[in-house]
Amino acid sequence: MPCCPRWAGLGAQLAGSGCARGQPAAAVMSLLLRGAGGARGALRPCCPWGRAASRRGLGCSSGGWGPAGGGAGVRPGRCSLLAGLAGAAAALAGLGLVRRAEMVSREAAEEAADELSRRCGDFMAPPVSGLRELRSRRQDMRSRMEMLIMETQSQVCRALAQVDPGAAFTVDRWERKEGGGGISCVLQDGNVFEKAGVNVSVVFGHLSEEAAQQMRSRGKTLKTKNGKLPFCAMGVSSVIHPKNPHVPTIHFNYRYFEIEEADGTKQWWFGGGTDLTPTYLNEEDAVHFHKTLKEACDQHNPELYPKYKKWCDDYFYIKHRGERRGIGGIFFDDLDSPSKEAAFQFVQSCAKAIVPCYVPIVKKHSRDSFTPEEKLWQQLRRGRYVEFNLVYDRGTKFGLATPGSRIESILMSLPLTARWQYMHTPPEKSREAEILEVLRNPKDWVH
Amino acid sequence: MPCCPRWAGLGAQLAGSGCARGQPAAAVMSLLLRGAGGARGALRPCCPWGRAASRRGLGCSSGGWGPAGGGAGVRPGRCSLLAGLAGAAAALAGLGLVRRAEMVSREAAEEAADELSRRCGDFMAPPVSGLRELRSRRQDMRSRMEMLIMETQSQVCRALAQVDPGAAFTVDRWERKEGGGGISCVLQDGNVFEKAGVNVSVVFGHLSEEAAQQMRSRGKTLKTKNGKLPFCAMGVSSVIHPKNPHVPTIHFNYRYFEIEEADGTKQWWFGGGTDLTPTYLNEEDAVHFHKTLKEACDQHNPELYPKYKKWCDDYFYIKHRGERRGIGGIFFDDLDSPSKEAAFQFVQSCAKAIVPCYVPIVKKHSRDSFTPEEKLWQQLRRGRYVEFNLVYDRGTKFGLATPGSRIESILMSLPLTARWQYMHTPPEKSREAEILEVLRNPKDWVH
Repeated sequence: MPCCPRWAGLGAQLAGSGCARGQPAAAVMSLLLRGAGGARGALRPCCPWGRAASRRGLGCSSGGWGPAGGGAGVRPGRCSLLAGLAGAAAALAGLGLVRRAEMVSREAAEEAADELSRRCGDFMAPPVSGLRELRSRRQDMRSRMEMLIMETQSQVCRALAQVDPGAAFTVDRWERKEGGGGISCVLQDGNVFEKAGVNVSVVFGHLSEEAAQQMRSRGKTLKTKNGKLPFCAMGVSSVIHPKNPHVPTIHFNYRYFEIEEADGTKQWWFGGGTDLTPTYLNEEDAVHFHKTLKEACDQHNPELYPKYKKWCDDYFYIKHRGERRGIGGIFFDDLDSPSKEAAFQFVQSCAKAIVPCYVPIVKKHSRDSFTPEEKLWQQLRRGRYVEFNLVYDRGTKFGLATPGSRIESILMSLPLTARWQYMHTPPEKSREAEILEVLRNPKDWVH
Repeated sequence: MPCCPRWAGLGAQLAGSGCARGQPAAAVMSLLLRGAGGARGALRPCCPWGRAASRRGLGCSSGGWGPAGGGAGVRPGRCSLLAGLAGAAAALAGLGLVRRAEMVSREAAEEAADELSRRCGDFMAPPVSGLRELRSRRQDMRSRMEMLIMETQSQVCRALAQVDPGAAFTVDRWERKEGGGGISCVLQDGNVFEKAGVNVSVVFGHLSEEAAQQMRSRGKTLKTKNGKLPFCAMGVSSVIHPKNPHVPTIHFNYRYFEIEEADGTKQWWFGGGTDLTPTYLNEEDAVHFHKTLKEACDQHNPELYPKYKKWCDDYFYIKHRGERRGIGGIFFDDLDSPSKEAAFQFVQSCAKAIVPCYVPIVKKHSRDSFTPEEKLWQQLRRGRYVEFNLVYDRGTKFGLATPGSRIESILMSLPLTARWQYMHTPPEKSREAEILEVLRNPKDWVH
């Protein structure tokens, strides 16, 4: 298995895997958070990990994620060390012990710190790099992308918790010995969702020679220093399998890769995509899904959606079955133009489209009645999902072949249950045959 | 995926796959046979396909597999064209119309023909090569091996039908456009077995250049003629998944490969193995299973069992989990010594050990009571089975990557149902932890 396929098309490809071969995650800590209205507490509207995390020793090195102080500009209930500092500064100012000029610059710093801490306050767990680190390089793309993937994880988890109120999210924060770590949020056996995993990982270190080779074979000429190639890779990836066969499965993944060459040159690129796998075809849903993604793409360039829609149909192809895994969506890799800023803005638009393209479909169908036969067909389709992920998905294959990967985060993309039935063929003109037809011959949904 | 890994370690590796890239099977014909005592007819003690097959047009070219005539030496109820001929010859002889010498040679031929047809009479379907062809090259290893794999399929299917009386066997006879074909017998959703597939295939044609390369890389120096390399590959392979979590899953596979070089030299080798995958550990069963296999091996050479036991533990390793798939058994490949005859005799002993090593365990536990938690653990282990087969099994991977393979026969090794649960860890000292320990650290069962 060639190493490091540039994190392409990946189920959970960043889950604890670095290109340098290494050791298993050094530490994993778990929390259990429940959806609002759940019997055993609520996924709080802010600071879900603040208190719980600090109870489990998840504090950051600069002082822990304790309950919020009453600092100026920090919304009540938010937790932040920075907020605490800001409060102390304000108190000092009130005592007349600091000069006006110092106060102005401090206020600006506090405002920026507040904004960052406010955003972090909604995350499922403290960011992998730590707030102090993120603050120190606030304008750097790595920080901005880490904030985006953490935010995306949080937005999706909260949206899922809202439609599946009784469900429990397990939040695992794990560390990678060689550098970085991740946060895996998994909801299992809920009322609406059979299994929903949303994983963030931020890993860094040195690419192995094998991985660097792989980069070269993919067209990147990389100058190593003593055979070493520092890299940083991060992403958010998710697969959400609902219980009801009339609610489709969604997968998304957005990632950023950076490599530093011997002369200090940085190579970087983005990749990602969002795609839908229904058990039964609902044309209205398919159009809504694709239209929402198209609108996100069109804000940046009208050529993007058709190109990435086709790429998605081509990538999620189960060759031995002659079927796509689902009805597609968008998929892209190696995105390094027109500029880093423009590419990031595009990825941000795609990430923001996840909840609106999917959650309305969940709400619409989560109470649809279904027959045992429909459930069985869903289980057979889940089997196909497993086939794609284990046989073809480059991220899964790469993760499984990389020592030190966090296997549970990689395989959280697999459904809770699946079925393989010998020679199952749906009757002609049935609803099962209808979706098969679309999987065999992808459709254009928005033109 | 490199082509043609010499049919090594293969779940269902011969299922319709030839090394030359080709077309899907040209024809598939199905029968439905039921176990003895089943409500809808019985899997007959002899000639199960004689009448049914001929009804479906499965007759051989020399006149069909009709009900038996009353020929001498043919047990009543057996079907055979040859038996009919033999009967006619005997009648002619009785009329004094043939001389004594002619009668003697005819009797010898009849006897041999009778013996072959008698053995064929018990098969699940007509042999792939046809009785006439097999008869014409009776002493050839290809014929002897085809008879052995057909016989093994029949013995196993009958033994399964006996312990699961109400279960239905689907018998699919398929043809491979490029040469050869196979017979897939599948029992699905029975009382005792969740899914049991026993597949025979006999394929021949020309190895692709890619496949020939692969052979060379595995140490065989092969002289092609105009880049062509005639080959013949055949085997029986099976996976049997029971319903009750106290009855283990078994897998076996026995295969023969022949290649003809440009100068007419023939290279040949055997491969195979039998291994057990229990959900819960039962030491007595493990010892019985390994001991039966050891006895089969020891008849030939006392060095074989320890060597092939280790090979089995090494092969069925789920690397990303750090676990073996099951408690092992035997596994071997590239067997081309001490002689073709001796190797065949060894393979025959192994094949004959399948029913005695497994069926007593099935009978012992098929009525054991079990809890929903035990069923759940079985389903999680089934998930691991799927992981091994789709990620590591060379035969499955080769089959899926080969155009023209019969996918349904390859993937019949997958369980009917499976489960993946995020971060499932059995409690210490539980029965679940006990089997995990053995899967992580294989034991020596018979010393």
